[in-house]
Amino acid sequence: MTNENHEYKLLYFDLPGKAEHIRYIFAYAGVEYEDERIQKDKWPEIKKNTPYGKVPVLEIDGQQVAQSNAIARYLARKFGLLGQTEWEALQCDVLVDTLGDLQAAVMQVMKEPDPIKREEIRARVTKEELPFYLSKFEKIVQENGGFSVGNDITWSDLVFAVLLDQFESMYGKTALNGYPSLKGLKDKVHNIPSIKSYLEKRPPKSPMPRH
Amino acid sequence: MTNENHEYKLLYFDLPGKAEHIRYIFAYAGVEYEDERIQKDKWPEIKKNTPYGKVPVLEIDGQQVAQSNAIARYLARKFGLLGQTEWEALQCDVLVDTLGDLQAAVMQVMKEPDPIKREEIRARVTKEELPFYLSKFEKIVQENGGFSVGNDITWSDLVFAVLLDQFESMYGKTALNGYPSLKGLKDKVHNIPSIKSYLEKRPPKSPMPRH
Repeated sequence: MTNENHEYKLLYFDLPGKAEHIRYIFAYAGVEYEDERIQKDKWPEIKKNTPYGKVPVLEIDGQQVAQSNAIARYLARKFGLLGQTEWEALQCDVLVDTLGDLQAAVMQVMKEPDPIKREEIRARVTKEELPFYLSKFEKIVQENGGFSVGNDITWSDLVFAVLLDQFESMYGKTALNGYPSLKGLKDKVHNIPSIKSYLEKRPPKSPMPRH
Repeated sequence: MTNENHEYKLLYFDLPGKAEHIRYIFAYAGVEYEDERIQKDKWPEIKKNTPYGKVPVLEIDGQQVAQSNAIARYLARKFGLLGQTEWEALQCDVLVDTLGDLQAAVMQVMKEPDPIKREEIRARVTKEELPFYLSKFEKIVQENGGFSVGNDITWSDLVFAVLLDQFESMYGKTALNGYPSLKGLKDKVHNIPSIKSYLEKRPPKSPMPRH
């Protein structure tokens, strides 16, 4: 572990959700942090003491910072995962936000309480949003020789790995069959020794809330 | 106007929406750009040629960049509106994303087609989300002596000015009466000569889409 002169504590639920890419960034950088996974009965009390009633929150030397991607971007800059130029930092931001748009479409499926409507939305997302975005991402990663931005690893690659993994959980292991560069990117990230070691040690996945 | 060595063209609808803070950033920096306001009948054709089927898109020397806040953050860094340290840049990101959360709550009202449900949501947002967030923001701006981050203007202040203005349009001129520091921040931004001059010249507000 790198000796970083700060004390980090990440507050989030026992879920990947909006914190998993932050955990990957810490793992990649080899920086120690406390990975506090909040149990449901503790949440109301913890919630009151967060800046805006939400998690993830990162405590840096006791100082609380809110907002998932604000935290991730800050750590990415600190740990050299933001690309080599401001132009590459911009490309990371664009891809992370666009992955967020795709994830929001996918989450519509999870959020729909009516099972018939849920299947309709799932069918639409599977037929429209997923191939639309994935084919664009595939092209970018292919053109960059296996990276989402530039020619080296960035936090955008880690966000890709987390989300592509999630899509495979939801849509089956064949979900990325038409996207060899994306599959390659995901596998490459998951084979980085520090990430691999984190994945082996992380708690078993809790089921995602379905409402 | 500053002679910036790049050619900028902003594509968005004739609305504040997700582009107004980008227009403020250009105005503040005194950098020329083409403010292309897409008319409805042109949108299907333009949409096809955007990176992800959405706007705003910023063309920098003909190269297209997607994602509202990715664009804004990049320009903010270029034009010195990102704070004086990476810690301040982080605080800007946290506030911009948190303002986004508040805006999403407010937009629920606009998006609800059923008039009875719409009034219910409006009542809840007025009673809960708005005072929750605004009182927290008020405290921050007060503690910083009139700025949302640090002791000088940042892109976060411009985002505040745009959104607070929007809240006043929606909830009436008294909406910020309990928040003197926020009102002061909004007025301060709107009295910056370059912003003031932009506001005087900008096209009259189109009505916001209600669904």
